[in-house]
Amino acid sequence: MDRIPKHPMGKKHMIQAGIVGFRGYSGAELFRILARHPRVTAWRMEHRADAAPELQPRHQKTAPTIMATPEAAVEAGLDVVFLATPHDVSMELTPALLEAGIRVVDLSGAFRLREPEIHKRWYGDDHSAQELLRNAVYGLPEFYRERISGARFVSNPGCYPTAANLALRPLVQSGLVDRSVPVVCDAKSGVSGAGRKASLKTSFCEAGDNFSVYSAFGHRHVPEVLQNSGLEENEFHFVAQLLPTPRGILETIYLRLREGAGKGDVLAAYDEAYRSEPFVRVYDPGQFPDLHAVQHTNFCDIGFKFEEASRMLVVVAVEDNLVKGAAGQAVQNMNLMFGFAETEGLL
Amino acid sequence: MDRIPKHPMGKKHMIQAGIVGFRGYSGAELFRILARHPRVTAWRMEHRADAAPELQPRHQKTAPTIMATPEAAVEAGLDVVFLATPHDVSMELTPALLEAGIRVVDLSGAFRLREPEIHKRWYGDDHSAQELLRNAVYGLPEFYRERISGARFVSNPGCYPTAANLALRPLVQSGLVDRSVPVVCDAKSGVSGAGRKASLKTSFCEAGDNFSVYSAFGHRHVPEVLQNSGLEENEFHFVAQLLPTPRGILETIYLRLREGAGKGDVLAAYDEAYRSEPFVRVYDPGQFPDLHAVQHTNFCDIGFKFEEASRMLVVVAVEDNLVKGAAGQAVQNMNLMFGFAETEGLL
Amino acid sequence: MDRIPKHPMGKKHMIQAGIVGFRGYSGAELFRILARHPRVTAWRMEHRADAAPELQPRHQKTAPTIMATPEAAVEAGLDVVFLATPHDVSMELTPALLEAGIRVVDLSGAFRLREPEIHKRWYGDDHSAQELLRNAVYGLPEFYRERISGARFVSNPGCYPTAANLALRPLVQSGLVDRSVPVVCDAKSGVSGAGRKASLKTSFCEAGDNFSVYSAFGHRHVPEVLQNSGLEENEFHFVAQLLPTPRGILETIYLRLREGAGKGDVLAAYDEAYRSEPFVRVYDPGQFPDLHAVQHTNFCDIGFKFEEASRMLVVVAVEDNLVKGAAGQAVQNMNLMFGFAETEGLL
Amino acid sequence: MDRIPKHPMGKKHMIQAGIVGFRGYSGAELFRILARHPRVTAWRMEHRADAAPELQPRHQKTAPTIMATPEAAVEAGLDVVFLATPHDVSMELTPALLEAGIRVVDLSGAFRLREPEIHKRWYGDDHSAQELLRNAVYGLPEFYRERISGARFVSNPGCYPTAANLALRPLVQSGLVDRSVPVVCDAKSGVSGAGRKASLKTSFCEAGDNFSVYSAFGHRHVPEVLQNSGLEENEFHFVAQLLPTPRGILETIYLRLREGAGKGDVLAAYDEAYRSEPFVRVYDPGQFPDLHAVQHTNFCDIGFKFEEASRMLVVVAVEDNLVKGAAGQAVQNMNLMFGFAETEGLL
Repeated sequence: MDRIPKHPMGKKHMIQAGIVGFRGYSGAELFRILARHPRVTAWRMEHRADAAPELQPRHQKTAPTIMATPEAAVEAGLDVVFLATPHDVSMELTPALLEAGIRVVDLSGAFRLREPEIHKRWYGDDHSAQELLRNAVYGLPEFYRERISGARFVSNPGCYPTAANLALRPLVQSGLVDRSVPVVCDAKSGVSGAGRKASLKTSFCEAGDNFSVYSAFGHRHVPEVLQNSGLEENEFHFVAQLLPTPRGILETIYLRLREGAGKGDVLAAYDEAYRSEPFVRVYDPGQFPDLHAVQHTNFCDIGFKFEEASRMLVVVAVEDNLVKGAAGQAVQNMNLMFGFAETEGLL
Repeated sequence: MDRIPKHPMGKKHMIQAGIVGFRGYSGAELFRILARHPRVTAWRMEHRADAAPELQPRHQKTAPTIMATPEAAVEAGLDVVFLATPHDVSMELTPALLEAGIRVVDLSGAFRLREPEIHKRWYGDDHSAQELLRNAVYGLPEFYRERISGARFVSNPGCYPTAANLALRPLVQSGLVDRSVPVVCDAKSGVSGAGRKASLKTSFCEAGDNFSVYSAFGHRHVPEVLQNSGLEENEFHFVAQLLPTPRGILETIYLRLREGAGKGDVLAAYDEAYRSEPFVRVYDPGQFPDLHAVQHTNFCDIGFKFEEASRMLVVVAVEDNLVKGAAGQAVQNMNLMFGFAETEGLL
Repeated sequence: MDRIPKHPMGKKHMIQAGIVGFRGYSGAELFRILARHPRVTAWRMEHRADAAPELQPRHQKTAPTIMATPEAAVEAGLDVVFLATPHDVSMELTPALLEAGIRVVDLSGAFRLREPEIHKRWYGDDHSAQELLRNAVYGLPEFYRERISGARFVSNPGCYPTAANLALRPLVQSGLVDRSVPVVCDAKSGVSGAGRKASLKTSFCEAGDNFSVYSAFGHRHVPEVLQNSGLEENEFHFVAQLLPTPRGILETIYLRLREGAGKGDVLAAYDEAYRSEPFVRVYDPGQFPDLHAVQHTNFCDIGFKFEEASRMLVVVAVEDNLVKGAAGQAVQNMNLMFGFAETEGLL
Repeated sequence: MDRIPKHPMGKKHMIQAGIVGFRGYSGAELFRILARHPRVTAWRMEHRADAAPELQPRHQKTAPTIMATPEAAVEAGLDVVFLATPHDVSMELTPALLEAGIRVVDLSGAFRLREPEIHKRWYGDDHSAQELLRNAVYGLPEFYRERISGARFVSNPGCYPTAANLALRPLVQSGLVDRSVPVVCDAKSGVSGAGRKASLKTSFCEAGDNFSVYSAFGHRHVPEVLQNSGLEENEFHFVAQLLPTPRGILETIYLRLREGAGKGDVLAAYDEAYRSEPFVRVYDPGQFPDLHAVQHTNFCDIGFKFEEASRMLVVVAVEDNLVKGAAGQAVQNMNLMFGFAETEGLL
């Protein structure tokens, strides 16, 4: 927090925040949120890899733009840089930014897995900034709030793992899950989850009026769930599918409760975990959230139903993949890093 | 087949087919298929319960229209009547039509469950035509072709059970499924599956850009799957969800293979079951069909992927809910009932 | 402004605002905006005609709810009531609310046309509150800001006329339009423009993947354009069409410029009219806004192109029908009525 | 017709038809139609410019594939080749195919404009096969049936001009149009009209939930309308817009009738033109077709409304851009070229 006192804004601190990747969907959402945030001045940072035309430039024209380099960031007096970039770009930019004394929130997958060999197994490359892997704080505030509060470097969770971990961890940690039966997560995401690039798969004519499986059992987000939910390898099975809608994730999760457990235990576990959480809402048993409940918000909503006879539990977790699944959660993390109210700019 | 020879059409028999419920989505699709069918003259039959304006009346104006009564059907010389009606209307019309010597293909759920008490448990009413329940032939040609061929009364399968039974039965019957682990079917359907009636839930503003769970563990189609797949109660868990697209069903089915079984066994089981089937297509392991592959066709396409380490299998089955899931399958059944080529009018 | 000083909130006045019709799309949007508005406490007001389940009740559960009567409004200490109701309900509630000293912003068409006989011609009924017709201030701030600022009763413009008048009035008033040639407005609206009621026309299956004309030359919004744009009867021709998207209006307007006029004159007329306007953005000649530019905002964006050889001008105006076309503009009016900053709660 | 008698198929001739560009939307639609056509064997022809993966290869796997060269076409015994290719590819392939004795139906814009200088003005390049420009028969059967019937080379009309010419020509030729007032055509097309190539503009996230103007007053299809409708330069004004739906075109056309003319004259003009046409349906005055009326069919449907006081007429013409606007019309032309029934394979 050393830099903050330099801003003599009367009763409120203001910080300077840069966004690399502001032309993508997550980056543009981040810009929209930060532009309205009462404690932040937002800067656009151009990276050599940028190509796409800006989304709604009209909205953004007043923001200053600088190059995405540590030098430019220092010169501009930035306090924090958000990296809404591919994971190789994040690996390249993060060390130099941190060294220049600038905090970093990385939205890519570069620093989410703690072990270099697990990173290599799922991402396919040797990690070029291994020494930072263990310094990165995994930015899921509902579980790691304290560590985030003091952090200079936060790795923002993946969109799917955010919902899956929020749905699963309280149940696993309370010992409610029958571990002899596989946990299945049938996940559906809106098309913006694929990022902003021209491709036939995400074209209107081919993704519209359609629904398709695009990853079965091998998605990079699986180890992020294992690392944070308490489930072990081969206990969690994940399929990712493409919904014909621009934004929103719904995960339908199936598991068996251990003998003797029932819906009251599920409710109690969620209540204990989320009673005081501003961004997680748990529904009454038998009620399920839909995408409309969370689009354009930072909420993750959770509903469930339990069938006594089979002890099967279905949990439904929804979020906006660009907000709680990316930009909104990044701002929630920033709020914690800088000592702002956690919900500032997000309600 | 007694009535057929009366049509002296030279080298081809023609039959007269009536449709009750031609204003609904399944009924309109049936009309479209029958209007092009080379062996059929299609009649529209008006029922007192009809209210909605006709879909695309311009296309249908040349078809004769009669009242939906056995007398009118006899007078018109109908050979077969399709009931695309609510299940109570089907229970009412079927006995009289059969008695009048007219064959019936019922698209409702009225006659799909063999046991009256199971019908009552899932549909909530006492069956008013119990004596016919056991006479009804369940019209899934891939499994019951012989019985359908001689039938005067066919009960057309539900949309979800068609795909689920085609995906599951070959695996269950080959003994490949580890029965100690629950089979999960995560089903998604286009909005036309809800039928053609004005409702907020299926309005453009509320179903569009959305995705929602509408039935968890308690759908009426569950007993149809149990009755035909070989799975037992509490072994099969089903959740139904609403896709923001007009038509198409995709079911993602999760199960564990018994020890020792692998993807070759799955492929062999499907190959044995569907090698000669005109309307079931099995994909190479690891390849999945999407909705575009089957919309507006009578195909059910099946893909799967097996994970060695966990023995988990995911099977994806897709169909057009209005075609293979309703009207197309009804015509496939009619073709069998009247001795026509099974694919006539359907390719 | 008499009631306002009663709120002793330190440096800021707060007002109490009620919403009748909060279950509809415009009313729910109004609720969302007011719930975040720093100067307003929002109340839900239940009317006997209400039937639909609430949209996202989870978001709204903290708001107080009272009956939609003048007595309840007085008892609750409301300063203003928004009527997001059918025009007959507005005619009934408005006089009593005003008499009880409560300001009114009416979002219906009840008080938009100044002359009772014109109202009767287009709405088909005798106006039951004729004496108020001339007291109502037409709430298009870009043209009537001064009158709105002192108003106790504002009639909020229709969605189509807002965009059409913003596009046309500066050109008509500058004398740029060749009046010998008809002005054509080809208008397209998202489905929420039809209101929130179950109907086959606005069902997902029938409005989706479709586009249709629903009103040609006879829409009730035509006289609102004539009354405010400066065009005369038979000079303006309007067709309304249904877009397969939930929200947004785009109007493509065709007219011929008078001899000697060119694109510079068009730009100058718009610049003079909108240079200082916070919610109207004029694009460079040849650039056109799309729906994404304005959805979920209170902006009306305008683009145009001029063809020298034929002197034809095409103007494209877009807005979110639920925001600048309804709820957002209503709040903009409220801000003016109560002396708040015009953009408060709207950026 | 010299080649046809060589096929000794009993009572029916069969022809061999090749498709270049079968991976695109029009080409794939053409393949679907031809694959069901009772008089045709369809061949896929690979062109070096092809890149996209095939649409639904599963459906097409049985068709033979050859290179897109005149030699391969001759060797395969092709009777006709359809070019669903960019206009420069069509200019290159057409002369050699014709010289090799193979008939050609070109779906590109290469040969639609009779005058080389007009081609250059709108397409920007010198025509490389000018000598063929005047040999090409413009394939709009409703107006040029006789010439098409004897043709070896047909240039298939553009999607927009098909609807516009069908809507306008009968009115212009009957002298009903007040030529002193501009004719305005406000056109909307589904996204498949943009062709099958990856681009941000046609991505699901950017074209979905959107509506945009993409061409105002300068579209290449304008001269095709002038050439065939009877209107002169500066009398016809055209704006093209992108609908968030995969397929379908709706054109809303505005014009003033000459003094003395009325809706009876309009009806009479259309009746005279289309009474016997199998693929043009004219609606009762005041009734308008929507996209659902024509999607997946070869129909062009026309509705209109006349306003006495202003003499303004609005005409609405709809078609499926991939069928009557491309592949269906191409097959209609082929049927005429080879003496088949005009509707064969198209109903």
